[in-house]
Amino acid sequence: PPGLVTLVGAGPGDPELLTLKAVKALQAAKLVLYDHLVSPAVLDFLPPDADRVYVGKESSRHTLPQASIIELMLRLARSGRAVLRLKGGDGYIFGRGGEEAQALAAAGIPFTVVPGLTAAQGAAASVGIPLTHRDHACALVLATGHTRDERGLDMDWPMLARPRQTVVLYMGVHNLPEICRQLIAHGLPGDTPAALVERATLPDERCITGTLADLPQLALTHGVKPPALIMVGGVVGLRAQLTPRATRQQAPLATALD
Amino acid sequence: PPGLVTLVGAGPGDPELLTLKAVKALQAAKLVLYDHLVSPAVLDFLPPDADRVYVGKESSRHTLPQASIIELMLRLARSGRAVLRLKGGDGYIFGRGGEEAQALAAAGIPFTVVPGLTAAQGAAASVGIPLTHRDHACALVLATGHTRDERGLDMDWPMLARPRQTVVLYMGVHNLPEICRQLIAHGLPGDTPAALVERATLPDERCITGTLADLPQLALTHGVKPPALIMVGGVVGLRAQLTPRATRQQAPLATALD
Repeated sequence: PPGLVTLVGAGPGDPELLTLKAVKALQAAKLVLYDHLVSPAVLDFLPPDADRVYVGKESSRHTLPQASIIELMLRLARSGRAVLRLKGGDGYIFGRGGEEAQALAAAGIPFTVVPGLTAAQGAAASVGIPLTHRDHACALVLATGHTRDERGLDMDWPMLARPRQTVVLYMGVHNLPEICRQLIAHGLPGDTPAALVERATLPDERCITGTLADLPQLALTHGVKPPALIMVGGVVGLRAQLTPRATRQQAPLATALD
Repeated sequence: PPGLVTLVGAGPGDPELLTLKAVKALQAAKLVLYDHLVSPAVLDFLPPDADRVYVGKESSRHTLPQASIIELMLRLARSGRAVLRLKGGDGYIFGRGGEEAQALAAAGIPFTVVPGLTAAQGAAASVGIPLTHRDHACALVLATGHTRDERGLDMDWPMLARPRQTVVLYMGVHNLPEICRQLIAHGLPGDTPAALVERATLPDERCITGTLADLPQLALTHGVKPPALIMVGGVVGLRAQLTPRATRQQAPLATALD
């Protein structure tokens, strides 16, 4: 019989943000196909003798095209091997997990899906930007910022530029100037708070905040590189207040007052 | 010194969908304030002697108003006790975590935030509805379906009714007929696939699929009750194909071919 394929979301990077279910799947894995955006610390949960196959995709150079990844996954499962298909974030949010699940279903190969935290959630908690807030955003929009057609970026600007919502764009750093210009052209004020979060939840995470008007220049100044999220909306303005300060305050307070 | 407050997202319900970080926080907790939507199995990770305070809110009857929850949390933290503030889903997505974090920051109380899977992610993986898919949705919109002003539901219908996106509405079951009517009135075809997912990821989860035109009647027929999600968009049409079938297929195949 074909092997079971487990599509697992590896979360935003910090291995402590894996779900219990994902950790169990990792610990039981014999063969894993993993992507570029899976952080090395996540792979530490694998048994030492598990076979690891890197099929990673970067936005600029695709190590294996999607069709080849699917073909390899089907071939391994058909040979009877259980396959752990490990993706950064949540496989059903910009992870092309839907396409891989369709291929498995069409081939009659059994599969299960383990959701993972998507980068926006990791970034929100880590840098202190709530994704919704009654005073600022009653909706959250997640979209990608890298799909082009002949006229430029293929994005629904009127929708993305609505007021009173939080927009988080994945894979948009290379197109940041065009994204900010279009959001302003479609009605968002230039002083709308906006942030870049680079390598969310990892030890070298960086967060740069500004406005739609000045974020492209700030990105250049700070040399922001993918993977990074673009976060737009009033909630970004809360960051100065909400940056988690547990470690910063705990130690001195305890020392001073004990 | 004040106690540390840890705002933890308990995920959609299945305790295996907790993050490692959340499990560690639960296992170390001495005092927990928890909401209505936290599933009992999640509380099983608490030490037996942890103090448990139910502050739950249901959409119709608020056990404690939000201001009282915040006041209680501040009082306990100021008394020096470490507080685990446990919320269903992700506290920064419709969890009012932002408001609670603001109150903590304003009071000078140290806090950290642990993100959790939001119900839409749990439902997607569990019932087989990817939240994005290149052929159907290049954006994901999460919104709530229960805020009213004098003119009816206070929702951004033109944004919610855009094509080529997935919309997931939280807390909207009571308003399902109005929601479906407005989405159609604002341009979505009546045959747009739509689903209700009741108690996502829990053992008694139910998923009912139909279209914007017939979902209100189906909800009545099946007696769908909150908490339930409304999912709208082409991706819902993939469910028939993508319902995870591991358990269903594994056993018979193994028996037949071994």
